[in-house]
Amino acid sequence: MTESVIEDRQPTAAILVIGDEILSGRTQEGNAHFLAGVLTEIGVALRQIRCIPDDKDTIIAAVRELSAQMDYVFTSGGIGPTHDDITADAVAAAFGARIGVRDDAKRILLDYYGPENLNEARLRMARIPDGAELIRNPVSHAPGFILRNVHVMAGVPKIFQAMVEGLRGALAGGKPTLSHSFQAYIVEGAVAAPLREIDARHPDVSFGVYPYYRLEGGPGCTIVARSTHPADLAAAAQDVKALLDDLDVRVVIETKPR
Amino acid sequence: MTESVIEDRQPTAAILVIGDEILSGRTQEGNAHFLAGVLTEIGVALRQIRCIPDDKDTIIAAVRELSAQMDYVFTSGGIGPTHDDITADAVAAAFGARIGVRDDAKRILLDYYGPENLNEARLRMARIPDGAELIRNPVSHAPGFILRNVHVMAGVPKIFQAMVEGLRGALAGGKPTLSHSFQAYIVEGAVAAPLREIDARHPDVSFGVYPYYRLEGGPGCTIVARSTHPADLAAAAQDVKALLDDLDVRVVIETKPR
Repeated sequence: MTESVIEDRQPTAAILVIGDEILSGRTQEGNAHFLAGVLTEIGVALRQIRCIPDDKDTIIAAVRELSAQMDYVFTSGGIGPTHDDITADAVAAAFGARIGVRDDAKRILLDYYGPENLNEARLRMARIPDGAELIRNPVSHAPGFILRNVHVMAGVPKIFQAMVEGLRGALAGGKPTLSHSFQAYIVEGAVAAPLREIDARHPDVSFGVYPYYRLEGGPGCTIVARSTHPADLAAAAQDVKALLDDLDVRVVIETKPR
Repeated sequence: MTESVIEDRQPTAAILVIGDEILSGRTQEGNAHFLAGVLTEIGVALRQIRCIPDDKDTIIAAVRELSAQMDYVFTSGGIGPTHDDITADAVAAAFGARIGVRDDAKRILLDYYGPENLNEARLRMARIPDGAELIRNPVSHAPGFILRNVHVMAGVPKIFQAMVEGLRGALAGGKPTLSHSFQAYIVEGAVAAPLREIDARHPDVSFGVYPYYRLEGGPGCTIVARSTHPADLAAAAQDVKALLDDLDVRVVIETKPR
């Protein structure tokens, strides 16, 4: 019994987004949203997304805290060639690891830029902590790295996404979280009470209700049931469907688990 | 001298986004990005954005931690009528405040829904901690609230934005952060070294470099200088402009501080 409970457990994760441009409102963050979808697919429970500035002490403290709390940490941003790219040094410092230009990373950059274009600034991108494993960058070649449970990746969305796709197969996940949702033109306040009862009847299913407005159709909400147990999820979805039928509400979009 | 330094200091802030739907990748968060822009405009330094699940203990711990660290905390999400809306109770619990249906909030909901439609679920939205000040909701009327330095707001973007606009005048800011940016078709690695020197010459200005790719035009980057000191910023921008001229790089878009 205990063993199957342990197998059921999803590994936990946090995403640490590093960059002043997010906090100033200049850039809308999208990497966390992309990775959140991938983690859900492979059965990793994302427990926190945190955006922090390009400040070494702040990065060190956050890496230590989240690395101790979670099975996986993923960082985005701050590994380019400019002076504000301090993530690699901060992650090394968080674990007391030595960092310097590493031959394997330098070779990748030499192959890509050629010796004549590999200036001092670009060579900064070959600074990798001792003991870290490289993460391949098929877009612009400067690698990310994995140190302990921390996965250090680029902030440029195209590069971040390519790095995640490369990592995907190597990340151990638990049972994936499945979801079943109903979008309907009923206001949140009208389904709240019966939904609370349905929630109480299905301890292994969690429910979320997300209101929306449409110019045509008016206010409505999407009811989402989530679970790692397909049979429990199906039973819960049936109860929600019966509730909406009882209330004589037409379901506009039903999205079943894939 | 000391006084002007204190006046110069920007108040600090954190945004706490509450909702399983963000962490599952279902919903792309946009409220933090909106509020980040407003805070920059009014001279409040946003130091962290944190997204967490609909879990009471997690919310309580995050509210306590961020409220102690920052001048302002802003929360988004979890104040609707359904069973997963637990933010108000969690924020009250974080400060040991009593919470219940409050007459002032109930009156607002009665006026809006009418007594016949104010069911038990909707009445949950009148649960406001003792001592909290209400935040007006011109969209769907259920109010947010301010308890100590924590501003509790709705997650629905239209409502969140309306609440922020209503609060804006009441938030004390410091000197606003101004920015001056140059978008040019030059790769990051080519400006990194000279920019490090410019950065060293302007201690009150921070610089960020953000690479991009365009199908036409190829790779380029945007160099952003930020400061609360207009004269220092202008001097720094002049140095960046001179650097780009020296490198014979045409500036595609220059955005001067407003």
